[in-house]
Amino acid sequence: MILESIVTTLNSDRSLNVSPMGPSVSQDLKTFVLRPFDTSTTFANLKRDRAGVMHVTDDVLLFARAAIGDDVFTVPGACSCDHSSVQDAQKIDGKVLTGACRYYEFEVDYIDQTGPRMTLNCRTLKSGRLRDFWGFNRAKHAVIEAAILATRLDFLPSQEIAALMKRLQTIVDKTAGEQETQAMMLLAKFIQSHAREQ
Amino acid sequence: MILESIVTTLNSDRSLNVSPMGPSVSQDLKTFVLRPFDTSTTFANLKRDRAGVMHVTDDVLLFARAAIGDDVFTVPGACSCDHSSVQDAQKIDGKVLTGACRYYEFEVDYIDQTGPRMTLNCRTLKSGRLRDFWGFNRAKHAVIEAAILATRLDFLPSQEIAALMKRLQTIVDKTAGEQETQAMMLLAKFIQSHAREQ
Repeated sequence: MILESIVTTLNSDRSLNVSPMGPSVSQDLKTFVLRPFDTSTTFANLKRDRAGVMHVTDDVLLFARAAIGDDVFTVPGACSCDHSSVQDAQKIDGKVLTGACRYYEFEVDYIDQTGPRMTLNCRTLKSGRLRDFWGFNRAKHAVIEAAILATRLDFLPSQEIAALMKRLQTIVDKTAGEQETQAMMLLAKFIQSHAREQ
Repeated sequence: MILESIVTTLNSDRSLNVSPMGPSVSQDLKTFVLRPFDTSTTFANLKRDRAGVMHVTDDVLLFARAAIGDDVFTVPGACSCDHSSVQDAQKIDGKVLTGACRYYEFEVDYIDQTGPRMTLNCRTLKSGRLRDFWGFNRAKHAVIEAAILATRLDFLPSQEIAALMKRLQTIVDKTAGEQETQAMMLLAKFIQSHAREQ
C-alpha cells in the first residue's frame, strides 16, 4: 500500500531537504520501500547517509510547496502553518518536522540501483506521534492530486492537465479550509506559469 | 471545512443506522453542521432523538457499503474489517463504531427546515480516540470519490460516470491495499448494475 508522505534528509552541507515521497509500506510501517529517481536530491542524500525521517501529515500546503521545489525553510513567512518547525531526530542524524502528525526515523538497509527508479529498503528505528490526522477531506486530497500533477507536467498533455485541474478546483471550492485553498492557488499558479513556458 | 464522516443514529426500533455524511466542522470539531436530505433516515432519527455519533475513520469499505445502502451489520461476514463492532455511547443514547479512528457523541441544538436540505447545528458532548488515521493514500480517496459518485447516479450523465470511474480505478490499481481494492470492486459493481437499469 502506498502512503503519500514527506521525507526529510540532510544535504551534504547539513541543510535540510524536504521531499514528498510515496513509499510502499507495511501495515505497521516498520518497513517500507522508497523509489526515488536516481537524479533526485533525496536519493543522493540517502545513498550517502543511509538515514532519514518519513512523516505522515495532513499539511497539504507542505506537500504543495515541496512538490514545486519551494524552499519551505528559507521562505518561512509565506504561510501561517508551523510546517517549518523542526527538532533533532533521536536515533539518526536528521530532522523531524514538528508540524507533522506522525514520524518514522529510518535507516536504509539495502539499495538496488538496477531498475529505472532506485529501490531503497528502509527500516523504522523510532516512530512518534505528534497530533491527530484530520480525516477525509475531499479538498485535501484534491491538493495531493494537483501536487502530483505539478511534478508530471513534462509527461502529460496540457489539455489533460487543464481538465484535471478544473475538476480538482471544483472539489476545493466546495470542501476546503484556508490551507487547502492557499495550497491549490500556489499549485494552479505554478502549473499555469509552467504551461506558458512549453 | 468539510469532513467526510460516518454518522450513526438509532432507528425507532432501536436498530442502528449508519450513514456517510459530510458535515461542515469547526477546527476543533466541537460544533458542526449536518445537512441531510429531509427524506433520509438520518434526518428522521436526528429530528426524533436529537442525538447521534459522528466518526472520523479511514475505513473506506465502510464508506462504500454505507453509501450504497449495504447493511454493514446484518451482513457482517462480507469482509474481514471490524467496522461492524459497536459499543454504547456514554453521553447520549447511541452507538460508537469501535473500528473508527475517532468519534464525537453529539446532540442537535437547532434544526432549520426551510432550505432544500435540512440544516442541523450539532454540538459535541464527548469525543474519543481509538486509533490513528492511516494518512494520505490516493486509493482511499479514490474510493471516497467513487462512493460519492454512487450516491449521485441519478444526477450525472452515464458517460461522465464511466470516465470518472476509469480514472479512479487507475489510482486504486496503483496505490491500494486489500480494503481499498475490495471497496472499489463493490462500488464498480453497484454503479454498473445501476447503469443497466437506466
